[in-house]
Amino acid sequence: MSKEKEFVKEIADFETDFPQWYTDVVLKAQLVDYGPVKGTMVIRPYGYAIWEAIQKEMDDRIKATGHRNAYFPLLIPYSFLMKEAEHVEGFAPEVAIVTHAGGEELSEKLVIRPTSETIIGQMYSKWIQSYRDLPVLINQWANVMRWEKTTRPFLRTSEFLWQEGHTAHATDEEAEEETIKILHLYEEFARNVLAMPVLIGKKSEKEKFAGAIATYSMEAMMKDGKSLQAGTTHFFGHNFAEAFNIKFLDKDGTHKYVSTSSWGASTRLIGAIIMVHGDQRGLCLPPYVAPYQVVIIPIAQHKSGVLDKAAEIKANLDKAGIRVSLDDSDNSAGWKFNEYEMKGVPVRLEIGPRDIENGIVTLARRDNGEKQTLPIDSIVEEMPKLLKQIHDGMYEKALNFMNSHIKQVENLDELKKTVDDGNFALTMWCGDRECEDKIKELTNASSRNMPFDQTPVGDKCVCCGKKAKHKIYFGKAY
Amino acid sequence: MSKEKEFVKEIADFETDFPQWYTDVVLKAQLVDYGPVKGTMVIRPYGYAIWEAIQKEMDDRIKATGHRNAYFPLLIPYSFLMKEAEHVEGFAPEVAIVTHAGGEELSEKLVIRPTSETIIGQMYSKWIQSYRDLPVLINQWANVMRWEKTTRPFLRTSEFLWQEGHTAHATDEEAEEETIKILHLYEEFARNVLAMPVLIGKKSEKEKFAGAIATYSMEAMMKDGKSLQAGTTHFFGHNFAEAFNIKFLDKDGTHKYVSTSSWGASTRLIGAIIMVHGDQRGLCLPPYVAPYQVVIIPIAQHKSGVLDKAAEIKANLDKAGIRVSLDDSDNSAGWKFNEYEMKGVPVRLEIGPRDIENGIVTLARRDNGEKQTLPIDSIVEEMPKLLKQIHDGMYEKALNFMNSHIKQVENLDELKKTVDDGNFALTMWCGDRECEDKIKELTNASSRNMPFDQTPVGDKCVCCGKKAKHKIYFGKAY
Repeated sequence: MSKEKEFVKEIADFETDFPQWYTDVVLKAQLVDYGPVKGTMVIRPYGYAIWEAIQKEMDDRIKATGHRNAYFPLLIPYSFLMKEAEHVEGFAPEVAIVTHAGGEELSEKLVIRPTSETIIGQMYSKWIQSYRDLPVLINQWANVMRWEKTTRPFLRTSEFLWQEGHTAHATDEEAEEETIKILHLYEEFARNVLAMPVLIGKKSEKEKFAGAIATYSMEAMMKDGKSLQAGTTHFFGHNFAEAFNIKFLDKDGTHKYVSTSSWGASTRLIGAIIMVHGDQRGLCLPPYVAPYQVVIIPIAQHKSGVLDKAAEIKANLDKAGIRVSLDDSDNSAGWKFNEYEMKGVPVRLEIGPRDIENGIVTLARRDNGEKQTLPIDSIVEEMPKLLKQIHDGMYEKALNFMNSHIKQVENLDELKKTVDDGNFALTMWCGDRECEDKIKELTNASSRNMPFDQTPVGDKCVCCGKKAKHKIYFGKAY
Repeated sequence: MSKEKEFVKEIADFETDFPQWYTDVVLKAQLVDYGPVKGTMVIRPYGYAIWEAIQKEMDDRIKATGHRNAYFPLLIPYSFLMKEAEHVEGFAPEVAIVTHAGGEELSEKLVIRPTSETIIGQMYSKWIQSYRDLPVLINQWANVMRWEKTTRPFLRTSEFLWQEGHTAHATDEEAEEETIKILHLYEEFARNVLAMPVLIGKKSEKEKFAGAIATYSMEAMMKDGKSLQAGTTHFFGHNFAEAFNIKFLDKDGTHKYVSTSSWGASTRLIGAIIMVHGDQRGLCLPPYVAPYQVVIIPIAQHKSGVLDKAAEIKANLDKAGIRVSLDDSDNSAGWKFNEYEMKGVPVRLEIGPRDIENGIVTLARRDNGEKQTLPIDSIVEEMPKLLKQIHDGMYEKALNFMNSHIKQVENLDELKKTVDDGNFALTMWCGDRECEDKIKELTNASSRNMPFDQTPVGDKCVCCGKKAKHKIYFGKAY
């Protein structure tokens, strides 16, 4: 067996064992490793560089909409968690608790933040006095901790990294408008940065955030047809304002509760990228978050002039702001081809003695395997266009995949078959929790969200047959 | 009393009550607030924006020297801490401990990282196999927790933010070279970004990091003559490699321990900025980390054209990459002058109806109060130069202050008087812990560091009078 085939063989089969394929890819591409404490992950440099690119792009968008970053403490008094009834029910079972510090037992136990509504609510009650202080638009980049029974790198880990926006407004209308605005920000980010189509809409009562009046989500379809909730925004109304006594003196001279929102996206997005774009050869990274957008592989690199020319091309691309790597190691060109395909580098640039003679290079696209030759002089000019083409091509492909895996269904049998075959089911629902629970029990699919466009696709509930209230997606989910 | 005077009066006297001045400034400028758990701080948007600027500049430098970022778990098994004898002694008393998670008592208690040598050592033992894997050059931006008895915002808080670099090398020489290289990186950063002169050198055995063979530090002089340790680098030799069994197969076919280093700088740097540059009117921020480098204050803003012109200037500065704010609130111009002086904005740009007629603006420097007028057309071109002048002027001023507050001393009486008067003492020391302890007891000054230039300033130990081994700085410290 050739070295190349051996190499690929180390990754489980994409079609028949997608979960193992995922695990193999995240470990082999050195995105993560398992931490010593159960359920924790180490994000290795290659994985963290993706996160840094995500952070940069997301942070720019968050700031462009008037939000500013801040940092709130990791440790929250346990009593804070108790102040909002639904919130404590949702999060208390999965918190990690600090009981001792500085060599002494603490008088009140502390939780490591699972999310920061409570501690931020407490601070907002101090900071907000008047309508002049509103809106408060703050975001935080932080680590959070949720003790989960079953964990998988990026998708569900006891500790993960995320951004959490927390805003306070004078009216419910403004607060809810904020959650919709950010939902669209997330959608635009997914499309234009991750090349990832998503379905946005409102969560059911059952699936909403603990303490929210309404939760909105973006759902992405993985290549196994399962859904990954990739970002959520929450409208709280007065729930946290009442729990933490966040009031302001309005223009009319009366004291009112503020209306709040929160929203978050996390390192889960890296899991989404892997499962939306990957294939049997490994990762396939969208250009705008790829740690290296281009890898240069010298052919016959021992021959005079090859490495010099490769280094010159690298320097020129560096200068143009393209993220580029040059692999001049002793490994064979074939080994390198496999390695960078597995690592999902969008463009491979090959250059050998004959290419130099002819003044050209060969470019190979990771996303569709297409090759082209290009004059050396035009690389710097053409590369941004090529990266854009790759991005657009990846988005198009993922969008087609998603659209072709959404099926309208009218009864439970169809729903079950549809999700079992790796699709989302688009259907009508009466809005009752009972039906939602029954669907979950029978099909293992959960409600994903209700799109804003509620043009009906029927008039009866897929489960009970009574009058339907909502158009909704069901799917199996991570 | 005028509103302006009242305003200033709210900050304690800089000369007579420096500690209270510090507390007043950090709270009033809204850099921080106290968190609900004792010893924790909330970093508010204005403070966090300084940290973001620090991160950006520091991160660029760390990456330019070949390091990559990664992320390691927050929670460390307690047993890891025990593996390096000195490390556990140094950190065990001040860790926060998680005993319960997910509703259950944990079989092994976990500590929230006070620093990450142990958990990173554990991962390196897995990742490093061969000399080809070396050097490993990784940095992490993270929160850490050390339960301190006495806390002050930025200077000493139970949780703080920092970067911690952790590197592994084939030889001790390379590892120690790394610690010196990063120490110089920190010094350059302090000078060119924070406008802050520092003294770099080697720490005494007493003051070194728990588990290190050698610790190097940069020490900055605050305006009360006390020292703030503003960044440290540690050479570990084989200490952590032996504790965590980090070995590699060398070119000669034998297995060897790697040699490791670590280095860190934290949100303490914000405290340093405040106390190096601040004055009676509040903060004075170095331009390259100021959240706003310029604030535009419209004069008689109700007059036609004033706000339009102010907005135009803002847009032009924005476009040129200058961080600029326009305060068009209803507050009086006098109130605004005080507010932005207190917040330390480097340049105040005043523009009123007469200025517009004359095509000019007035610029006022926060650092030295100098005013100048400038044609509106040349603002964008001149501003970067002015910011550079301000930076240079602030550095020069701080350097002169520091140099004029370093005194050579030859005996304990002189040393005590020198540090009591708000100076650093430069002196000779025999190297014995006994003398170091005695000096601390008698003068409340600790050894700061031993400069690389060891040209003697005497031949006898300042304490015992025996033959001196080291030239060293003593000072009171934060």
